Amino acid sequence: MAKFNRILITGAAGALGTVLRENAQHLADTLRLTDIADMGEAKANEEIVQADLGDFNTVLEMTKNVDAVIHLGGMALENTFETILNANIRGFYNLYEACRQNGVKRIVFGSSNHAIGFYEREAMIDSFVPHRPDSLYGVSKAFGEDLARYYWDKFGIETLSIRIGSCFPEPLDRRMLATWLSYRDFIQLCDRGLNTTRVGFTVVYGVSANRENFWNNQQAAFIGYQPQDSAEIYREKVEANSSQPNPNDTAVVYCGGSFPAAGHFEDK
Amino acid sequence: MAKFNRILITGAAGALGTVLRENAQHLADTLRLTDIADMGEAKANEEIVQADLGDFNTVLEMTKNVDAVIHLGGMALENTFETILNANIRGFYNLYEACRQNGVKRIVFGSSNHAIGFYEREAMIDSFVPHRPDSLYGVSKAFGEDLARYYWDKFGIETLSIRIGSCFPEPLDRRMLATWLSYRDFIQLCDRGLNTTRVGFTVVYGVSANRENFWNNQQAAFIGYQPQDSAEIYREKVEANSSQPNPNDTAVVYCGGSFPAAGHFEDK
Amino acid sequence: MAKFNRILITGAAGALGTVLRENAQHLADTLRLTDIADMGEAKANEEIVQADLGDFNTVLEMTKNVDAVIHLGGMALENTFETILNANIRGFYNLYEACRQNGVKRIVFGSSNHAIGFYEREAMIDSFVPHRPDSLYGVSKAFGEDLARYYWDKFGIETLSIRIGSCFPEPLDRRMLATWLSYRDFIQLCDRGLNTTRVGFTVVYGVSANRENFWNNQQAAFIGYQPQDSAEIYREKVEANSSQPNPNDTAVVYCGGSFPAAGHFEDK
Amino acid sequence: MAKFNRILITGAAGALGTVLRENAQHLADTLRLTDIADMGEAKANEEIVQADLGDFNTVLEMTKNVDAVIHLGGMALENTFETILNANIRGFYNLYEACRQNGVKRIVFGSSNHAIGFYEREAMIDSFVPHRPDSLYGVSKAFGEDLARYYWDKFGIETLSIRIGSCFPEPLDRRMLATWLSYRDFIQLCDRGLNTTRVGFTVVYGVSANRENFWNNQQAAFIGYQPQDSAEIYREKVEANSSQPNPNDTAVVYCGGSFPAAGHFEDK
Amino acid sequence: MAKFNRILITGAAGALGTVLRENAQHLADTLRLTDIADMGEAKANEEIVQADLGDFNTVLEMTKNVDAVIHLGGMALENTFETILNANIRGFYNLYEACRQNGVKRIVFGSSNHAIGFYEREAMIDSFVPHRPDSLYGVSKAFGEDLARYYWDKFGIETLSIRIGSCFPEPLDRRMLATWLSYRDFIQLCDRGLNTTRVGFTVVYGVSANRENFWNNQQAAFIGYQPQDSAEIYREKVEANSSQPNPNDTAVVYCGGSFPAAGHFEDK
Amino acid sequence: MAKFNRILITGAAGALGTVLRENAQHLADTLRLTDIADMGEAKANEEIVQADLGDFNTVLEMTKNVDAVIHLGGMALENTFETILNANIRGFYNLYEACRQNGVKRIVFGSSNHAIGFYEREAMIDSFVPHRPDSLYGVSKAFGEDLARYYWDKFGIETLSIRIGSCFPEPLDRRMLATWLSYRDFIQLCDRGLNTTRVGFTVVYGVSANRENFWNNQQAAFIGYQPQDSAEIYREKVEANSSQPNPNDTAVVYCGGSFPAAGHFEDK
Repeated sequence: MAKFNRILITGAAGALGTVLRENAQHLADTLRLTDIADMGEAKANEEIVQADLGDFNTVLEMTKNVDAVIHLGGMALENTFETILNANIRGFYNLYEACRQNGVKRIVFGSSNHAIGFYEREAMIDSFVPHRPDSLYGVSKAFGEDLARYYWDKFGIETLSIRIGSCFPEPLDRRMLATWLSYRDFIQLCDRGLNTTRVGFTVVYGVSANRENFWNNQQAAFIGYQPQDSAEIYREKVEANSSQPNPNDTAVVYCGGSFPAAGHFEDK
Repeated sequence: MAKFNRILITGAAGALGTVLRENAQHLADTLRLTDIADMGEAKANEEIVQADLGDFNTVLEMTKNVDAVIHLGGMALENTFETILNANIRGFYNLYEACRQNGVKRIVFGSSNHAIGFYEREAMIDSFVPHRPDSLYGVSKAFGEDLARYYWDKFGIETLSIRIGSCFPEPLDRRMLATWLSYRDFIQLCDRGLNTTRVGFTVVYGVSANRENFWNNQQAAFIGYQPQDSAEIYREKVEANSSQPNPNDTAVVYCGGSFPAAGHFEDK
Repeated sequence: MAKFNRILITGAAGALGTVLRENAQHLADTLRLTDIADMGEAKANEEIVQADLGDFNTVLEMTKNVDAVIHLGGMALENTFETILNANIRGFYNLYEACRQNGVKRIVFGSSNHAIGFYEREAMIDSFVPHRPDSLYGVSKAFGEDLARYYWDKFGIETLSIRIGSCFPEPLDRRMLATWLSYRDFIQLCDRGLNTTRVGFTVVYGVSANRENFWNNQQAAFIGYQPQDSAEIYREKVEANSSQPNPNDTAVVYCGGSFPAAGHFEDK
Repeated sequence: MAKFNRILITGAAGALGTVLRENAQHLADTLRLTDIADMGEAKANEEIVQADLGDFNTVLEMTKNVDAVIHLGGMALENTFETILNANIRGFYNLYEACRQNGVKRIVFGSSNHAIGFYEREAMIDSFVPHRPDSLYGVSKAFGEDLARYYWDKFGIETLSIRIGSCFPEPLDRRMLATWLSYRDFIQLCDRGLNTTRVGFTVVYGVSANRENFWNNQQAAFIGYQPQDSAEIYREKVEANSSQPNPNDTAVVYCGGSFPAAGHFEDK
Repeated sequence: MAKFNRILITGAAGALGTVLRENAQHLADTLRLTDIADMGEAKANEEIVQADLGDFNTVLEMTKNVDAVIHLGGMALENTFETILNANIRGFYNLYEACRQNGVKRIVFGSSNHAIGFYEREAMIDSFVPHRPDSLYGVSKAFGEDLARYYWDKFGIETLSIRIGSCFPEPLDRRMLATWLSYRDFIQLCDRGLNTTRVGFTVVYGVSANRENFWNNQQAAFIGYQPQDSAEIYREKVEANSSQPNPNDTAVVYCGGSFPAAGHFEDK
Repeated sequence: MAKFNRILITGAAGALGTVLRENAQHLADTLRLTDIADMGEAKANEEIVQADLGDFNTVLEMTKNVDAVIHLGGMALENTFETILNANIRGFYNLYEACRQNGVKRIVFGSSNHAIGFYEREAMIDSFVPHRPDSLYGVSKAFGEDLARYYWDKFGIETLSIRIGSCFPEPLDRRMLATWLSYRDFIQLCDRGLNTTRVGFTVVYGVSANRENFWNNQQAAFIGYQPQDSAEIYREKVEANSSQPNPNDTAVVYCGGSFPAAGHFEDK
């Protein structure tokens, strides 16, 4: 595998950022890590940049001398629109525009199944369906994909957009038996996003090789993602901890789980 | 896996009913078994109801206090229309209407590839193509799927319709190298039909993981069916017992095998 | 236009049968008319057969020396299953089987939009979607289409299945501004079903050239149906007589109008 | 046609807003007009609200006692991201959220072909393709469609999203011979968006019945849009004023015309 | 409409070539006409080149100083393979290669429905289906389309490939009621092929606005072809001269009419 | 597996012909081998015919008493058109016509990914897309598929067309990590092409079970091809020998690799 000189990881203090920090040293000689939160001390091959993605000049600075970006920053849950607007929409634009100005040509984007969360489970959607976000958070991910597509069509910046299902150490509920993405498979996706010869603008569903599966990953076959894990080994444990829900609960009908059924955040 | 209190199995004296009776005790505390034929004595966790599905009141009675149904009853081969009409069409309606009145919300339906038997092998059809039945029997299975769809859309009764290929202890001829469904995989399908959180109205082709395969089961990925068997281990034996047929024989051209080429039953 | 020697019209006492009786003399030298109800006296070029389609021998007799059939018979509204079963399901089989035995090779079938009434308006479905009936009546029309397909694939009997929208002298409510089929256009469809060189098994939506339209008739272009009327000239009148309904009323959401929302008939 | 009590028109001082103001009095008893720019004096049936859509409380106020909205406000051309962000993204959210809080259930959205401007002309795209914006402006329209879809799926607010081609008094260049939307047809689209019984979330391409056409409007057939004008009568004039461009010019290859080839706005 | 300086018309002595010669003077200042047969004397704005397209150097010469080509040359009926090979396959290559060397960038190709003649009428195919030729002649037209596609993808030479149905003064049999292309509409197609701003590689079915229609011309909407004629006015005459054929005759089943049923030419 | 009496292998002196000669004795009692080049001495079960496929009478002779053909002959690389014309186009016709005259009904055709080499990698094309050849060589393969389709539709000669990716002992560059076909998997494909009960006209992509994959082989599931090898074990070696190319290099963008970017052969 080709090794990059330096890659930037945004959202490095978050759960998935931490996973990469601990397990993805092989991806580059130097990991430049950024987050609005404290990330502790830099290890040998790390550079630490505590910053707000909402500030363009800071982002312009942090994308200098970078070969590629894994973008996990921003709000990872539903919030008020103004919060989402700054962290995810403005932050996303800042990152892509800064990459354009600095000549960075490859980005792995941690998108979300919530960009299409209002499709029914049995629809078995692929990567080409129109967005149906299930939250303002999901809308911001849809925005990110649309903007990334624009930067590819217009400026030739490649993006692998990973619509992450549920990335946790293990599946926590019955839905995650279908939507779970193991850390190991998440790392593989980041690796493929960086190292596949050509990515263009490609959307892949970030799920492990689970027995149940809501999404058709056919489009992504060319990037060579072959998940190694399955939620199935956790089935007994998960089913023991919960009763079977009503199949017509909103949280069951739609791919997005609890999001389509959740309360709405109003700005104060 | 969640265990049901009581499930009803129709056609319990038939070949597949017997398979379930012997191997599916884990699916429920009590198996209520029904058939028009004699089923012998009830075992510890069994209830026996010998009855004709063509009689509504009997069906209404037998669906009381039932959590789910596996419907295998009716004629399993071509016959005269009046025979099919009573056993499969009226019987099918009786079952669904009785379930509606008794509040049973989940049914596994033993449909058949003969509901689409007039498609060519190389068409590689999926679960969304219009019916092309190859027999009056196949027409009755198409009717069953249409009625089940209606009961889902209108009354919220879920159905997993399994278009069974060829369910036998082992494949008996060259076509079955593609259409074979092992007993173990059949049981898994019944299990998934009962225990998947949400089924809605879903059509799955009931075939094992055979090397040759006529059908695209993509739609059913969300129910988590992962066949464990393959007809391939029987290939040598099957091929030794038969010569290669003409590729343009009607029985070879179409998915339905001998059915599209078979004689027509006339009512006397 | 080629003129037939004798065609059989079933349901000849009904509204559409009467339309044909009065306006379709040009289709054949002799119109053989049948209905379970009284049809009055035969005119010069007519033959009258009062009969129940549920009786096979009678149907066998009435299809002798017939060149083609326009099948409008059976229940035209929701009813109990047993009523539907006899009139529409058994009656439909009787007709096709009698045609097979008597060598009749072309049938125009008055199917219904209620065979697909549970699709949403905005789905813009074509002729190839799976059935989604909205009533037992709709299930019987779906059965008819499946059986007709079988008689085409197996016995070479051609059917034009017309999924009639709303065939009345004029549109009666707002939905009919989209679903209306004028008598003139209905007659044209019967004409095309009889006189197109090859029909095979083809499904066409029976609607005029209305401004609003729920269905994609692309598949039927080869039969040469070009509607002459539009519901638009009745818009002002229709809208004056009714207020705009709620867009989320069941009767508005689905193609089938009042059917998906209607009460369920139980057999006594 | 049902007449609304009061509709709100945003962007009322712009070109299309002015068209509606002058020609759409029949749509409602009262037109409430809003723009950030001066709109002159209110006529008899008008209410004037000069305001910035970027301010939520103002938008909340102006959507009170309104039956429906025609949303034309925001930047109508490419600009810097911060300008787009405030006018189109924040403004769009403010409008939908205010409608939700005030119970307004129907919106006609002036979207743009620039939301899909990076598709090639010969792709003949329909309404279901993923967004491929050709500008930050186009990204903001894609955002609007995604957010509108969310407000439909979650809150039942209906939107007709009109992807306007080129809405001018007459076509100004050769591309507009295909993309032109006459004022009369634009008004019809607004009318259909308001008065069609059910719209759900529907995307329609806003073009007249031009001889050349880049887009497939099949999905919108159910809303009953029947364009009355064609750019063809201006062909001679348009062609006389320009020479044939190179077919491989970026401005010719893509649906978006000059946008995909235009310079990029950087924030200062 | 832009006028070309000089266009080359191959097959100029044939029926369609003669139509253009007589009616297409407006397309260019000079028509250079070529055929292997005698074309009589050149008119004022004509240049005559009697030649065999099978000879490359001759073709190279005749494509000099040409702005565009309308290619109608070659065998127009079934023949032996060697005849087809020289006239249609080698001749086609010679033309495209000569255009490449001389910088000619736009070609209108008289292809044929026989390139897809083995599809059934009711398949309602569009421009994207794989070829299914019904003759060696049809295979050569499929070859032409494949080669033209290659010259577009690799060298940027644009082609409008017109799959001509039946281009005669009037329809001669019942099939032509669906497949007829009037001379006027043929000329319009040539005009659009030359004058549409961008054609890329596009396949259009060459049929008039006939009532019956076997083919879906949706892809070609962007070139602005709007047929002015219909075979319908000849229906009475055509039907009077022939009886209705059997719908299962090979010549009726398939789009290609008599070709799929015709005898096979063997080289001597 | 059924064993043939005699099969003909064309191109037997080439790389793939040699692979079959050494490893495919189990396919038939007698292998008749033909090539224009010297093939050495015949082994026990071999017949050697050194000949030019461009000569019909020779091909007619060599296809006598043959049960099936594996056609690998012709130019295997880009060349001048006249060379391609004789070897691949005339030769291909000669073979099919000779098979027709001698009653040979099953052919395995070594087609090539270069018949569709101008599709982008991320298009994930299936077997039904129109040809987009990337070379004259690719055009000749497209011609072969079109002609084979004709011989199936018209004369009932079955063909499995294998669009071979890169068939070498091991993958030689980064693209071949996706396109590699092992010799073992190539032999399996030939076996399936000969021994599947019915092939009709079927296109399969000839690739091993590589991690990266450009093509969707769904249509071919019914023939039972299950690749046993993967290029993945060679990844480290391949990547060590080359640097990552630019994702926008023509040789990377398109499926055909170096072919779309290669120079053009002109006839002298």
